[in-house]
Amino acid sequence: MNLKRCATATALILLFLTPTLAQSPIRADSSRMESRIKELAAFGKNANGGSDRVAFSEFDKQGREYIIGLMKNAGLEVRIDFAGNIVGRRKGESDDLPPIVFGSHIDTVPNGGAYDGCVGVIGAIEVIELLNANKIETRHPLEVVVFTDEEGGLTGSRALIGELGAEALKVKSHSGRTIGEGIGFIGGDPQRLSEIVRKEGEIAAFIELHIEQGGTLENDSTDIGVVEGIVGIEWWEVTIEGFANHAGTTPMKGRRDAVIAGSMFALMVNKVVNSYGGAQVGTVGKFVAEPGAPNVIPGKVTLSLELRDLSAERIFRMYNAIEKRAIEIAGETGTKITFRHLDVSALPALTDERIKSAIEAAAKELGLSFRRMPSGAGHDAQDMAKIAPTGMIFVPSKDGISHSPAEFTSAEDMANGASVLFRTVLAIDGKE
Amino acid sequence: MNLKRCATATALILLFLTPTLAQSPIRADSSRMESRIKELAAFGKNANGGSDRVAFSEFDKQGREYIIGLMKNAGLEVRIDFAGNIVGRRKGESDDLPPIVFGSHIDTVPNGGAYDGCVGVIGAIEVIELLNANKIETRHPLEVVVFTDEEGGLTGSRALIGELGAEALKVKSHSGRTIGEGIGFIGGDPQRLSEIVRKEGEIAAFIELHIEQGGTLENDSTDIGVVEGIVGIEWWEVTIEGFANHAGTTPMKGRRDAVIAGSMFALMVNKVVNSYGGAQVGTVGKFVAEPGAPNVIPGKVTLSLELRDLSAERIFRMYNAIEKRAIEIAGETGTKITFRHLDVSALPALTDERIKSAIEAAAKELGLSFRRMPSGAGHDAQDMAKIAPTGMIFVPSKDGISHSPAEFTSAEDMANGASVLFRTVLAIDGKE
Repeated sequence: MNLKRCATATALILLFLTPTLAQSPIRADSSRMESRIKELAAFGKNANGGSDRVAFSEFDKQGREYIIGLMKNAGLEVRIDFAGNIVGRRKGESDDLPPIVFGSHIDTVPNGGAYDGCVGVIGAIEVIELLNANKIETRHPLEVVVFTDEEGGLTGSRALIGELGAEALKVKSHSGRTIGEGIGFIGGDPQRLSEIVRKEGEIAAFIELHIEQGGTLENDSTDIGVVEGIVGIEWWEVTIEGFANHAGTTPMKGRRDAVIAGSMFALMVNKVVNSYGGAQVGTVGKFVAEPGAPNVIPGKVTLSLELRDLSAERIFRMYNAIEKRAIEIAGETGTKITFRHLDVSALPALTDERIKSAIEAAAKELGLSFRRMPSGAGHDAQDMAKIAPTGMIFVPSKDGISHSPAEFTSAEDMANGASVLFRTVLAIDGKE
Repeated sequence: MNLKRCATATALILLFLTPTLAQSPIRADSSRMESRIKELAAFGKNANGGSDRVAFSEFDKQGREYIIGLMKNAGLEVRIDFAGNIVGRRKGESDDLPPIVFGSHIDTVPNGGAYDGCVGVIGAIEVIELLNANKIETRHPLEVVVFTDEEGGLTGSRALIGELGAEALKVKSHSGRTIGEGIGFIGGDPQRLSEIVRKEGEIAAFIELHIEQGGTLENDSTDIGVVEGIVGIEWWEVTIEGFANHAGTTPMKGRRDAVIAGSMFALMVNKVVNSYGGAQVGTVGKFVAEPGAPNVIPGKVTLSLELRDLSAERIFRMYNAIEKRAIEIAGETGTKITFRHLDVSALPALTDERIKSAIEAAAKELGLSFRRMPSGAGHDAQDMAKIAPTGMIFVPSKDGISHSPAEFTSAEDMANGASVLFRTVLAIDGKE
């Protein structure tokens, strides 16, 4: 074959392929995302392979600079708001429309992983890259957000909805700085938080891509989790008082053993929670017996009760069942069981039906499997849901592990999430 | 009635009553015993009303001086042996016969009670008072013993049987002194312990009166416990390894919750121990969950397993059943359960049949109710049982409470115990 014939053949092949390429949906670049996740993970990587990029630390600052660089390279107009949130804006065709906001966080727990939060930030920037590469303009302006100090109590998003009070600013963060000091350290101004508060209607939609941090997607071999809402959380401290006595001289039948009552309690919580259909969870995470000596019948057990569900009503329905059974256990064991409701309640936050449908449609178009599910962990999205239609996209976590150096999400899963986010943003933008 | 007639009538009445008085059994003086218990309790009494007369403390020394005074007043020849044991001797008609030894201890646990040990010492001195008052001589010499540091590990009796080693002398006691230093402090000599070791045959019998420290006698409305033996004790440390995970994102069914496994374990121990007829006991006294946060599924539980019984064979039979069921629990909960047998074994020590029968006969003659029972607590008697026929007499403990300021035994119960001890000593002496 001579060169001319070769060129003609190539042109013919290209002519034949082009329509197919055009019809194939735009997809995120998995290797670019993975490289960026690894580059970000270098800031604060410790000897365990874990990440110590706690909010307001030097590592946090370095990671933020790295992200700001990516944003600027992607053409975003970057600013730091008074809470230290990084906001990268891309103009809309109707730039006075409220923005569509998407993003997550890059701070970690101590000895955390490389994916929690980071996948949502790198994924949001990936969406901008895809829009740029495909020369797509949106009607709404778009804002990529990196929230301040998510792990320390959703600091940045609480500030945005006007719920970051003076007391919270005094709390010492893992960096050693108070939250107020930390906000100043990363370029915010804790005195001017009221100026950044956004009201209902000021944001067209908020969408957060995040790793699941549980094993449901992996176990079900599902690509995408369509988050129905962020669960509410209630905590109780439960005290069981029996009677401490000599473990040798007290016959079995005369005992008022707080560990026996506590054990019955923990198993009962498990049974009650499992008796409701749904994704609710209940945990006895703390269990301390006193005096705690092998030769003394325990006179006291202090334990924690945590209940989480998308429905606050169901949380308290479960609690009532637990309390009722606890009275029976106290009677059977000769103990006294008391509950103290702790002031750390988080109300359930439901996501927006239109966004959930858009996420599902996006997954379907991309040929990805998906399922609706609650988020058992807290996220900035739960704050944003109070002022804007909100959605969350989950991608699988290997072995359901999170907040650990062993946290892992594959490049393919990250890219799937970003591709779904890309289509969802366009669907919400509603240009066509 | 004139004076003469009156005197005659009185004489007649006395003549009529005297035989009855003579037939009425000799009984301990309950008010004398109670006064002495209260006087002894003054040495080391704390603000809680508890006793801090820990071994080798100043209070212990003061209490010992008080007891030595009572012994001397009762005509005993008192000496301190090289282990610091106080020995008060009363000559026998055949003074070269091995002695009948009886007594207990006066040291307390920190914030302990006024009766544990003390009743046995005051009761032993009461026996001497009764012998003196009734001008009774015994064939055997008698020895009232006050053992050193019972609460710190049967120090005095271990020395007497040659089992107090060099390592034990280095152990720090509650007084702040090591046991070796403490022995010197109260008049012993830790370098010469080998000189006081008594061999089998050198003691005719050892009998200890003690409060029950449990609630069996009180619950059964029984006056006297005839101790069948001091139970053996075995300890294990049990480690349950699950998987610590996020309490919000980990569904109920995927959990490997160490508190759930630990709770099943504690209830299973209770069930296994109760499934054997008898007085055996089993206790999970320690129960520690890690990391112990309300929002983390516990990945680890460390707990203690203690089993006590008069039969070592039955202790290990129960252990084998527990170990077998633990494997099933580990399988059901996705955890790993491991046992570590701790080096604190105490072998069961059985009491002497002749002494038990003598105690029962004494109780019967005094019109007291009695029952055979094990001692669930350790006592100096368990050491003495290795070299001499041994018996123990229990009297009721109010509400089964011991090692506490709330420890209480009535004056009547104390006197009942001393009266039984008196008759038992005479029966073992076998003069008639």
